[in-house]
Amino acid sequence: MSLSHQLYDGLFADAQMAALWDTGAQTAHMLQVIAALCTAQGQAGRVDPALAARAAAHVAGFVSDMADLSAGSGRDGLPVPTLIRQLKAGAGPAAAAIHAGATSQDVLDTVLALTLRATSDLIDARLADLSLRLHALADRFGGNPLMARTRMQAALPVAVADRIRQWQAPLADHRDRLRHLRPQTERLSLAGPTGTTDFGETAPLMAQALGLHAGPVWHTDRSGVVGFAGWLALVAGSLGKMGQDIALMAQQGVDEVTLSGGGGSSVMAHKHNPVLAELLVTLARFNAGQAGVMAQAMVHEQERSGAAWMLEWLVLPQMAQATGRALTAALTLTDGIAGMGHPEGYK
Amino acid sequence: MSLSHQLYDGLFADAQMAALWDTGAQTAHMLQVIAALCTAQGQAGRVDPALAARAAAHVAGFVSDMADLSAGSGRDGLPVPTLIRQLKAGAGPAAAAIHAGATSQDVLDTVLALTLRATSDLIDARLADLSLRLHALADRFGGNPLMARTRMQAALPVAVADRIRQWQAPLADHRDRLRHLRPQTERLSLAGPTGTTDFGETAPLMAQALGLHAGPVWHTDRSGVVGFAGWLALVAGSLGKMGQDIALMAQQGVDEVTLSGGGGSSVMAHKHNPVLAELLVTLARFNAGQAGVMAQAMVHEQERSGAAWMLEWLVLPQMAQATGRALTAALTLTDGIAGMGHPEGYK
Amino acid sequence: MSLSHQLYDGLFADAQMAALWDTGAQTAHMLQVIAALCTAQGQAGRVDPALAARAAAHVAGFVSDMADLSAGSGRDGLPVPTLIRQLKAGAGPAAAAIHAGATSQDVLDTVLALTLRATSDLIDARLADLSLRLHALADRFGGNPLMARTRMQAALPVAVADRIRQWQAPLADHRDRLRHLRPQTERLSLAGPTGTTDFGETAPLMAQALGLHAGPVWHTDRSGVVGFAGWLALVAGSLGKMGQDIALMAQQGVDEVTLSGGGGSSVMAHKHNPVLAELLVTLARFNAGQAGVMAQAMVHEQERSGAAWMLEWLVLPQMAQATGRALTAALTLTDGIAGMGHPEGYK
Amino acid sequence: MSLSHQLYDGLFADAQMAALWDTGAQTAHMLQVIAALCTAQGQAGRVDPALAARAAAHVAGFVSDMADLSAGSGRDGLPVPTLIRQLKAGAGPAAAAIHAGATSQDVLDTVLALTLRATSDLIDARLADLSLRLHALADRFGGNPLMARTRMQAALPVAVADRIRQWQAPLADHRDRLRHLRPQTERLSLAGPTGTTDFGETAPLMAQALGLHAGPVWHTDRSGVVGFAGWLALVAGSLGKMGQDIALMAQQGVDEVTLSGGGGSSVMAHKHNPVLAELLVTLARFNAGQAGVMAQAMVHEQERSGAAWMLEWLVLPQMAQATGRALTAALTLTDGIAGMGHPEGYK
Repeated sequence: MSLSHQLYDGLFADAQMAALWDTGAQTAHMLQVIAALCTAQGQAGRVDPALAARAAAHVAGFVSDMADLSAGSGRDGLPVPTLIRQLKAGAGPAAAAIHAGATSQDVLDTVLALTLRATSDLIDARLADLSLRLHALADRFGGNPLMARTRMQAALPVAVADRIRQWQAPLADHRDRLRHLRPQTERLSLAGPTGTTDFGETAPLMAQALGLHAGPVWHTDRSGVVGFAGWLALVAGSLGKMGQDIALMAQQGVDEVTLSGGGGSSVMAHKHNPVLAELLVTLARFNAGQAGVMAQAMVHEQERSGAAWMLEWLVLPQMAQATGRALTAALTLTDGIAGMGHPEGYK
Repeated sequence: MSLSHQLYDGLFADAQMAALWDTGAQTAHMLQVIAALCTAQGQAGRVDPALAARAAAHVAGFVSDMADLSAGSGRDGLPVPTLIRQLKAGAGPAAAAIHAGATSQDVLDTVLALTLRATSDLIDARLADLSLRLHALADRFGGNPLMARTRMQAALPVAVADRIRQWQAPLADHRDRLRHLRPQTERLSLAGPTGTTDFGETAPLMAQALGLHAGPVWHTDRSGVVGFAGWLALVAGSLGKMGQDIALMAQQGVDEVTLSGGGGSSVMAHKHNPVLAELLVTLARFNAGQAGVMAQAMVHEQERSGAAWMLEWLVLPQMAQATGRALTAALTLTDGIAGMGHPEGYK
Repeated sequence: MSLSHQLYDGLFADAQMAALWDTGAQTAHMLQVIAALCTAQGQAGRVDPALAARAAAHVAGFVSDMADLSAGSGRDGLPVPTLIRQLKAGAGPAAAAIHAGATSQDVLDTVLALTLRATSDLIDARLADLSLRLHALADRFGGNPLMARTRMQAALPVAVADRIRQWQAPLADHRDRLRHLRPQTERLSLAGPTGTTDFGETAPLMAQALGLHAGPVWHTDRSGVVGFAGWLALVAGSLGKMGQDIALMAQQGVDEVTLSGGGGSSVMAHKHNPVLAELLVTLARFNAGQAGVMAQAMVHEQERSGAAWMLEWLVLPQMAQATGRALTAALTLTDGIAGMGHPEGYK
Repeated sequence: MSLSHQLYDGLFADAQMAALWDTGAQTAHMLQVIAALCTAQGQAGRVDPALAARAAAHVAGFVSDMADLSAGSGRDGLPVPTLIRQLKAGAGPAAAAIHAGATSQDVLDTVLALTLRATSDLIDARLADLSLRLHALADRFGGNPLMARTRMQAALPVAVADRIRQWQAPLADHRDRLRHLRPQTERLSLAGPTGTTDFGETAPLMAQALGLHAGPVWHTDRSGVVGFAGWLALVAGSLGKMGQDIALMAQQGVDEVTLSGGGGSSVMAHKHNPVLAELLVTLARFNAGQAGVMAQAMVHEQERSGAAWMLEWLVLPQMAQATGRALTAALTLTDGIAGMGHPEGYK
């Protein structure tokens, strides 16, 4: 569920993105969601308002026993039943107002919605940032001649700006796509044990409090999250194209880009490996394949599939982190470009 | 590139969809696109109008030597250079007005745009049709009790209508998604050998004549087609969920659906296998995996990647045909449902 | 199920391999398997020998109604029940000796075993052939200097022979692997409707007659075929590495290989595209992804999964054909190499 | 690179397997490999023996600055150059005997070989264990009648032992396959910067000291590790088949298995969810897909591909951990089976 490994964190990790998916953030989101349900139930008059307020306060301030949650996941397949038990244990009469009518999936899918919102915000900001930096790159080197290559063969000379435009243009498109995807992923899940409970006014109130859309039930329709995974593959894919181009441009004999920095070898001191460019290709291929694994989760049988749902948990967090890292790598790589094209032209 | 195999055509083939991708349709589209470019170049005044008209007429009425085209694909990696040579050979002075300034990718990608439009039309109509039939199914059996099952365990009784709603709701969403995707896939490709040629007024005129959008160059940005493949996986995935549910409902001991028809066994005369329900699962898992293969095509190096582009040709036509067949199978399966739920209720 | 498309057959098709999987070969194999069961049952004394011989002769000489078989696949999910019905209809009293105690899966999986044997023979012969030709290539150009490149950067000069050795060495290993895989794939399937029938002496007799191994039941254990698919991905993958190398060597500025032939462009007359080298990369990535789809078929529920089994039918034939084509492409590409390395050395 | 997430460790984590791949084990293996090279070089007389011994002792006892290693990975794409620098810094004259003639890939691939050996040992032992427990299960319940189901339909009654045999038989086959795979994965990597260095007697001495095979160079031939990944998918796939069967048997109305334990619901107290059975399906589908991603790493260009190599690092550790967890889950699940089949038979 994580791309973290201390030996390789400098290479693969994106600390900001990882923080959105880590234990702390996920637990905080669970409490936030459970508290928001208490509050909304009270506001909607479906639970005694005073009790609901007390329950919400209790939940919001709760410090969970994490080892117990992990053990609960092993027992129940997810941490929510244990968390609810912990919450109710110390809640006194407010216990009845906690998780009233909801199911574990309501909690975890709403947590996912909050996490995907933060994930999207982070990716969106970085896409905008990268676009600006590519713009600046084009300003610096765009006028230099570059040999266009089709099917890996020299075609005709173009300008560096033409190559950069191919990297930049998809970024804006991906941001557009994201705007359409957000209502499908940043959506409250509140449908009860069999996905059929009508929570009345509670749903829109809770959605509003959490800043989510209050769309239809998505317990078993995973199009939103699987579609989002597809989008992550598109984003990483566009960056992989840029990385592949730069690795090709950096070849001796081609010499169309000059990279400051670059990876060192343990034995060949003259080498400056385009590690970040390669990494973009790696992450693109990784996310491409993962998108195909995520799509297997569409076959979500009956009213809740443990098997299909758990597959999402294994794959989606990694895709988010791979995309996040691809963006930070692309930003660093772009900043390290010290020259592009053949200023002296092609004969 | 095709799901066809005579022994299995009754099972896997979708004749209507296959026709959109077959040799005849693809060759006709190539001629249509090449002719449209002639006409638009004439209208835009970039080619002598009379010559352009003569060229367009010549192209539109051309009968290609198919064996030569296939051999040309083997030689050049695609049929366009050979087709252009064939076209020019008999065109006299109009030859100069054929394929003027364009590149093979302009032709093939625009052909793809036309094919995807027809593909989308067919899928869209079937999604609407299936939605209606599921509505009728809910009208007939929706009030019957059904045991909701979560994690493959009996949860609480719901109504048949609740189960059907889970199959039906995503269909409308997929149609909505398609509306957003169409401008990204039904798009003219006209950018010349290195993707940098400005065709001026020719582009919008040609796009309009073909009923396509005249968006930006997409030679190396495959987000549109890869995103479309992802959508095909969503559609097939939703149908796979329905198929899995029906196969589970048809189990002896569960007995929540009665299927008329059903597959026969070579030795067990009593069996009525839910073949179409299983097929929906197969096609969902097939398309899910293929979406992951298609996404590898995002790493499209430099100004044209033969390797990445050919990967699309192998995968996308199959996904379209698998989706088409999933829809016809779902329609037949729905029509064959003779009973749902437990009218006598659960004790 | 096929990579065939007339427009692209020159590029993607492998006629020899396709013939092993086409309708004619598959139907002939079905009759061969059904006849062999008749004969073996007679020899084992489980069916009246005279009747068995008559049945075998009837089956062996049978001409099937193909349209009826295809329709039968649509109805039953596979062609066997219809074929058995056709066979019995005209068999008179010998009908009782046809398909006695067997199930459709016994027929189709044994047909697959025969097909995989022929597939393996073809691939094995081509691997041996390619290895020889690479050996000859090393004889011609192996002594020329070549710049070793690691992480796409010039490392140190080596010899052309060193590069070729990397292409050649895995070929022998793949042939070794195949020797271990054959008993797992070229295996009789004879286990009856629920996979539990003991056919006694019939099984070894039938296996011997067909030239297959008489191993344990593999109705629901798909390790053999999924493992074979993994091997196909390895073979195509090694050829993809060779293709990628050649495409990189053919770049202007690198100029480490001279290819005779090469693909033409529709507009850039100077270009000689390394189409076959690119195709090797395409087919490697295609088979890599397909291996992951095939592996989904391991989840084969209960005594026979229609959903998982049909997934194999969609994927495995394509992988065989892609591998076959990769080998013919590699052979042609190798023969077209007119020069390698930098005879004048690197300064 | 890890399936760990505190909230879900009870569900997904396999502490024993994770320990083989964690920072501590990997760093210890790096030092072990680097020290073994020093020693072998001394024994082979390629480095002054006394100096070599001193170097080996220095390396073996070294405590690395981990933060510096991680930063080094970010800079160089892998931790080895930094580690070598750290090692040499305090080694005095012995520095010359450290990493003499070797390259980073020699270190990391040999570390991988050691890790895969431990991984295989662990999986192998668990496969043997699971096989015994399934044997015991068959002893307890094997005689009970069970309805065989084909294509999810009741076929004919068999015995519980027949179903268990399908789960058990592949386990022995997987162990057989592993015996053939070990020489391909547990192999020394020692070939120098361009994969062409002949280390003479050093190689067999070093291999022997590490308990590895001294096969040919595998810098760019990834068949061994990709083939191993395919094997991991087979193992997880067989367990996924078992899990799917048990989840189906546990359905109300089918009632063919009784599970003690089972997951609790946050709202439905009567439920006993077959979480571990579902988890086996999840992990099978996960590994199936990952095998397809790993196979993309076969396209390993030139003498070292950073992009392809890093893809392995992201995928293979996860597959090992998923397989490990699948085995512990299968063991627990098997132990929790309190009844199987229908002792009273089927009418």
